[in-house]
Amino acid sequence: MVPITFLSDYGLRDEYVGVCHGVIARLAPAVRVIDLTHGISAGDVQAGALALRRALPYLPRDAIHMAIVDPGVGSERRPLALRCNDGAMMVGPDNGLLWLAAEDRGGIEVAADLSDSPHRIEPVSVTFHGRDLFAPVATRLALDVPVEFAGEPIDPETVERLELPKASVGAGHVEAHVVTVDGYGNLQLDATPDQLVEAGFTPGDRITVEQHEATYGRTFADVEPGALVAYEDSTGSIALAANGASAQELLGAPSTVVLAQ
Amino acid sequence: MVPITFLSDYGLRDEYVGVCHGVIARLAPAVRVIDLTHGISAGDVQAGALALRRALPYLPRDAIHMAIVDPGVGSERRPLALRCNDGAMMVGPDNGLLWLAAEDRGGIEVAADLSDSPHRIEPVSVTFHGRDLFAPVATRLALDVPVEFAGEPIDPETVERLELPKASVGAGHVEAHVVTVDGYGNLQLDATPDQLVEAGFTPGDRITVEQHEATYGRTFADVEPGALVAYEDSTGSIALAANGASAQELLGAPSTVVLAQ
Amino acid sequence: MVPITFLSDYGLRDEYVGVCHGVIARLAPAVRVIDLTHGISAGDVQAGALALRRALPYLPRDAIHMAIVDPGVGSERRPLALRCNDGAMMVGPDNGLLWLAAEDRGGIEVAADLSDSPHRIEPVSVTFHGRDLFAPVATRLALDVPVEFAGEPIDPETVERLELPKASVGAGHVEAHVVTVDGYGNLQLDATPDQLVEAGFTPGDRITVEQHEATYGRTFADVEPGALVAYEDSTGSIALAANGASAQELLGAPSTVVLAQ
Repeated sequence: MVPITFLSDYGLRDEYVGVCHGVIARLAPAVRVIDLTHGISAGDVQAGALALRRALPYLPRDAIHMAIVDPGVGSERRPLALRCNDGAMMVGPDNGLLWLAAEDRGGIEVAADLSDSPHRIEPVSVTFHGRDLFAPVATRLALDVPVEFAGEPIDPETVERLELPKASVGAGHVEAHVVTVDGYGNLQLDATPDQLVEAGFTPGDRITVEQHEATYGRTFADVEPGALVAYEDSTGSIALAANGASAQELLGAPSTVVLAQ
Repeated sequence: MVPITFLSDYGLRDEYVGVCHGVIARLAPAVRVIDLTHGISAGDVQAGALALRRALPYLPRDAIHMAIVDPGVGSERRPLALRCNDGAMMVGPDNGLLWLAAEDRGGIEVAADLSDSPHRIEPVSVTFHGRDLFAPVATRLALDVPVEFAGEPIDPETVERLELPKASVGAGHVEAHVVTVDGYGNLQLDATPDQLVEAGFTPGDRITVEQHEATYGRTFADVEPGALVAYEDSTGSIALAANGASAQELLGAPSTVVLAQ
Repeated sequence: MVPITFLSDYGLRDEYVGVCHGVIARLAPAVRVIDLTHGISAGDVQAGALALRRALPYLPRDAIHMAIVDPGVGSERRPLALRCNDGAMMVGPDNGLLWLAAEDRGGIEVAADLSDSPHRIEPVSVTFHGRDLFAPVATRLALDVPVEFAGEPIDPETVERLELPKASVGAGHVEAHVVTVDGYGNLQLDATPDQLVEAGFTPGDRITVEQHEATYGRTFADVEPGALVAYEDSTGSIALAANGASAQELLGAPSTVVLAQ
């Protein structure tokens, strides 16, 4: 029995997540659900897409991935099921949320529009497709229904893409975007260790980050309490943290940062 | 093996929810628990009762429903197990929390006072009946112990009820209560689409909500970013949302609202 | 199949917890994970150690306990697996987090340093040992790998201990530390009912707590709404609560309190 992974911006204050679990358990009592997170900021499609991509290499290979960050629910945007070229299956709204994960799984082989899916729960509400469309369809996929029969096949080329900003390297500096802020206040950037090398940085260097001093280190504990460290995080990106404190607060919640010598 | 659903105001910051899961797993390793939500505001019995009723139609039909919002724990209020006329089983405090859900399952057929339940964990603490009474009793019900043997049978007529406020319709306006605010800041009202029709509203109309302009629409994306929409939500009630923003903040956290022409 | 319990300070906003679940499910699809809490304050090792100890008596006896509050991740501190004298098994950082729980399970019989565990996921990141070390090792323990083969055996005497502050009793008063504040704003103290007896208090007495009046009662509902109650909580410690309100707010978030006549 393959599991379903579940990521959303539903939060855990309301019963939305629990109801989706209920729908799945009602259709398939033995299917297991792995909650990735429901703490994506409301409507932040890019944050959801990045979290799903970061998690993907650590999830069961046969899992069905259900992702719901869906500010356009009930509008023209299509509800989708996808099969990737490596066999991975996903359901979610057609707003770019699934794009990065699908790319990492070899790109989209088959896509289906779930609007009139035979597996939907009638009447489909306008605003809770998680309950009425995505959860029941993900469950059918877990029970071996092929994507082709989950909805109306569509051209994979028409699936909405997600363009990410890119860090840029100059002489002695890297200009990067903050792509994720985690619960510790660590800032994940779109810069890579290679880009820091290209800009002339070596591990152990002092780095100036928006008028603050930082160290290019390995981990939080490499610097004094409260001090800033730039390091390669657990996904291979450059991140900024403050030892025992919040880099997000220290730096004033920036959306871009310049790392300079 | 039937599952247990679990709703509470315990929050997820402490280990209370995890300990209840532990108690269940210790007694019955194979019983599955579906967390509906633990984000009910502390002590808000009405919010818990409404969330349970909203979730109920989407939960496994044979599930045992455990609900704990229990500001009177350790006082005179009785701990209860209920069997409804349609066979649904529930455990929780006798403070109205289970009432709406029980009504929707045909009313209460059998009720038992769990104070001296043979399935309680001794010594029963004064303040954590979730751990010591409700979780072990719910587990026994899941393992086929009948409600009659879970505690001391009592007259179902004596079970505490919950009276809800009611929206009222006047000429050209509806006066409604805010019954739930979700994590997006959407306000669920106790008004129904029929009441809006009765007051003379037609989908597409402009509505005045507490000096703010709103549209009677279908979904968030029907209005401009930041604008208000009144719509039929996923449970069939009228709700107020702001597209990509919080209606709760926009309207100043009201407890009642007037929808007027 | 034995379950894994999981406590951390990862929070639920990010995908960290979900990724650890993914790692476990990928290695052992049938192993069940019981989330104790992920709401421990960032880096608060003592709070984590206390929560684990409080939960322990209610968890499945054969469970593997995974606990991660790890501000020193990636530094010198060792990642550990422990087997206690009563057979209980735990994994987590060597910073005192596991100490109280291990004491309650008879002390440590075998300890292993996981730094070069054959079960780690390569490359081991510097900052996410939950994913790369603790989750895969906990899964192997659940699958019957002995602690001795999970890493390099070390002398149990070298495992980091945790010293707790202690409440002190004087004539007519008890000076206690706030060891935990829960989501309701209840303060758990390190004072015991015996210490209150020793200081001359009897249930029903009025107690002065930091210039506020309190009652030595049984439960919240024993006092007027908003009033303070000192009571024996569900773990046998003295706690302070305000009926329907937050004692933490009422008392101004103290770290120590004096209970006086």
